[in-house]
Amino acid sequence: MSFNHFDEQGQAIMVDVSGKEPTLRTARAQAVVRLRPETLQAILDGRMTKGDVLGVARLAGIAAAKKTPELIPLSHPLAIHHAAVEFATDPETGEIAVTATVRAFERTGVEMEAMVSASVAALTVYDMCKGSDKGITIGQVALLYKEGGKSGVYRREEER
Amino acid sequence: MSFNHFDEQGQAIMVDVSGKEPTLRTARAQAVVRLRPETLQAILDGRMTKGDVLGVARLAGIAAAKKTPELIPLSHPLAIHHAAVEFATDPETGEIAVTATVRAFERTGVEMEAMVSASVAALTVYDMCKGSDKGITIGQVALLYKEGGKSGVYRREEER
Amino acid sequence: MSFNHFDEQGQAIMVDVSGKEPTLRTARAQAVVRLRPETLQAILDGRMTKGDVLGVARLAGIAAAKKTPELIPLSHPLAIHHAAVEFATDPETGEIAVTATVRAFERTGVEMEAMVSASVAALTVYDMCKGSDKGITIGQVALLYKEGGKSGVYRREEER
Amino acid sequence: MSFNHFDEQGQAIMVDVSGKEPTLRTARAQAVVRLRPETLQAILDGRMTKGDVLGVARLAGIAAAKKTPELIPLSHPLAIHHAAVEFATDPETGEIAVTATVRAFERTGVEMEAMVSASVAALTVYDMCKGSDKGITIGQVALLYKEGGKSGVYRREEER
Amino acid sequence: MSFNHFDEQGQAIMVDVSGKEPTLRTARAQAVVRLRPETLQAILDGRMTKGDVLGVARLAGIAAAKKTPELIPLSHPLAIHHAAVEFATDPETGEIAVTATVRAFERTGVEMEAMVSASVAALTVYDMCKGSDKGITIGQVALLYKEGGKSGVYRREEER
Amino acid sequence: MSFNHFDEQGQAIMVDVSGKEPTLRTARAQAVVRLRPETLQAILDGRMTKGDVLGVARLAGIAAAKKTPELIPLSHPLAIHHAAVEFATDPETGEIAVTATVRAFERTGVEMEAMVSASVAALTVYDMCKGSDKGITIGQVALLYKEGGKSGVYRREEER
Repeated sequence: MSFNHFDEQGQAIMVDVSGKEPTLRTARAQAVVRLRPETLQAILDGRMTKGDVLGVARLAGIAAAKKTPELIPLSHPLAIHHAAVEFATDPETGEIAVTATVRAFERTGVEMEAMVSASVAALTVYDMCKGSDKGITIGQVALLYKEGGKSGVYRREEER
Repeated sequence: MSFNHFDEQGQAIMVDVSGKEPTLRTARAQAVVRLRPETLQAILDGRMTKGDVLGVARLAGIAAAKKTPELIPLSHPLAIHHAAVEFATDPETGEIAVTATVRAFERTGVEMEAMVSASVAALTVYDMCKGSDKGITIGQVALLYKEGGKSGVYRREEER
Repeated sequence: MSFNHFDEQGQAIMVDVSGKEPTLRTARAQAVVRLRPETLQAILDGRMTKGDVLGVARLAGIAAAKKTPELIPLSHPLAIHHAAVEFATDPETGEIAVTATVRAFERTGVEMEAMVSASVAALTVYDMCKGSDKGITIGQVALLYKEGGKSGVYRREEER
Repeated sequence: MSFNHFDEQGQAIMVDVSGKEPTLRTARAQAVVRLRPETLQAILDGRMTKGDVLGVARLAGIAAAKKTPELIPLSHPLAIHHAAVEFATDPETGEIAVTATVRAFERTGVEMEAMVSASVAALTVYDMCKGSDKGITIGQVALLYKEGGKSGVYRREEER
Repeated sequence: MSFNHFDEQGQAIMVDVSGKEPTLRTARAQAVVRLRPETLQAILDGRMTKGDVLGVARLAGIAAAKKTPELIPLSHPLAIHHAAVEFATDPETGEIAVTATVRAFERTGVEMEAMVSASVAALTVYDMCKGSDKGITIGQVALLYKEGGKSGVYRREEER
Repeated sequence: MSFNHFDEQGQAIMVDVSGKEPTLRTARAQAVVRLRPETLQAILDGRMTKGDVLGVARLAGIAAAKKTPELIPLSHPLAIHHAAVEFATDPETGEIAVTATVRAFERTGVEMEAMVSASVAALTVYDMCKGSDKGITIGQVALLYKEGGKSGVYRREEER
């Protein structure tokens, strides 16, 4: 087994993708925030009066997709062409499933952009609720789907 | 229930902490990367020859702690005084527990710095192994411990 | 008349403030976005259904306050302790007055942080409405108020 | 009326431009700094001896064009191919008209890059003169011209 | 003799490259760190036990290549496709030759990316050893090689 | 011999300085740019007509001092209180000695800020002259002086 991002001597490199043709790349990733059900209810009830927690988290996720090359050391700088963050909430369990979708016409995939975007949106929910609910966790950050490039389509079997 | 980071009208703000006295703040957070056991074994075996996956992830986590104010929209810029990232690995299950510790003498806590640091270190492990193991997930990102400020010490009961 | 940020030879410097004592500094600045009245009406009507233009602009303004040292070449890096952006709208004229308030306990003032914050919030409104209304302008970016440091309180006489 | 940067549910997104063909895009924007005439005279007289205020502001404007994707939340990251900032001064009125021109071969326009560049150059003039002239304002930030993309050429009628 | 990055009036600009065709560009640059031979020996001996000085410096150099447009005022933002940093050490003299290679398919060269990468990797070695060896210097930062674009191949004659 | 920035296990950390008292720290570093004498002469002659090479480099150096925590992986974020860059030129040899001075009231030294500032100013001179003079090198980047903290004053013996 060998790893991305290292050369034959085991030295970290930004892998040379200059010989690849750009293709349309899409990736979708998910992060799940686990809150107490009453915290989630307050988020859903309070959008207008107490503050739009999910609106702030969405913008944080989109901005983070653009910051991926600064965060992930060996990733390539990419000019992404689309980024979106969606939330599905389950009032019973108190869970918020954050899904981030990123697209670019590039020489390398956008999985990390999607993973970073979903993670930072989830961390921002945490930040805004941590005063009321210290036990919040973020779980199951995972790639759901990718498309483009020579490795083709990947679809996670059980999507959470 | 009300949220941090909003004023009475529900508008997002960076909360005014100028009236608080700086105190010594510590936070420790964890993120767990779940790999196939053989992927983890390759990481552990290959440190010198295939590339130091955990070494790269550690630096990414420390750098990310410094980037927290750029990632989390309503967080305060903080001059952190210490950051460290540690890894505990379980060859049976293929899990890597990433623990990030951050400390600062500041007017506000460093929980987000620790949470971001652990998350980005985990995402970097994902980045370096995703070519061999597409099903890697990151789970249970959680605050383990915090100290300092008027809310005192917090310790997560079951530390995974 | 001499200028801030140059030495006696006329060379740009970051002025030495290490000998000053930190004091509490506040600054408030304004930028006015001039839209067609129907564009402003659509913003006010559409907050929930068409998108929260002012909510996005507010976050952009707060984030920009933190980025001031990267934007204004000779400004000092500051750890700001408070940032808020407010909007007052006039449906008759189609104007949005953006007011940014910044506070820090520092050796130098936070005027530029407030000016940058108000400007970037206004530019973000422009960005989101430019498809419908190409003639939008931003006018009268000005410091409204400052307090702290040895030059004392400044209050702009006619506040627009 | 609908807004850029929101989807049908009114949620903020980075709009998908991956299906568009890159074309040559140009945008020119203006910001006007209003100083006391004697402050402007000191800037013009003092270029070599008191410090090159406009030279510093020009560099700040060019650097800010590159930072646009970090400042404007829903803007696309763009690799700009040209940026220039010019100043026209009116000693009678004390006004400096800052004009920023940006060009790129891209899938989306560069209006925001030009608007941000002109604004930050103007804010930098403010920063360097604020010690002598507290009443400086920045007015009439506006797009003067754009070209490229399917919406074609836009030219502001009265260019101040 | 005229300079890059200025127009005919001597004003700094980001030169317009929008009319150029992208070609494959490669650049290689070097920086030499001069340590006491015993400091170099400790680096080489201690990789596993005292800390991987060169591993940290390599990552810093790769990350810095991505940051070049933020550091060099009039440089163009580039999406680099490859970055690598290598070290050759001479235990006799205590020298570490840092070589950075950068590649991109772009409208302008990547010399600055390579020069910045080699310099920051060298500065990082300095940072990690400065406690033990205050007299460390960095010398002979130079472009070794460039290829691509209309000026063709450049190869430094004596490569140190 | 042991290194800064590693713990007892040889793992990279941001060293804990929270227990240290802030003191006034000053550092001065130098980088020497070696050009052909005619290139230097053109710089000196052409300040107004061909472009102010040294003025651009000075601003790049000051901005880079603020970016040090982003460039040097294990460095602490610092709020610097002063930064200045000076140039001494030798028309005979074609050398420009860049000297950067940085000051802060902090828990840790500002050597890296001064070293980065001098290096980036020198790299910017290179960038602006590389079209005319491909053989330019940067040499002898070194710390000249430091003061503050418990290790006291350091003064490089032969200051080039």
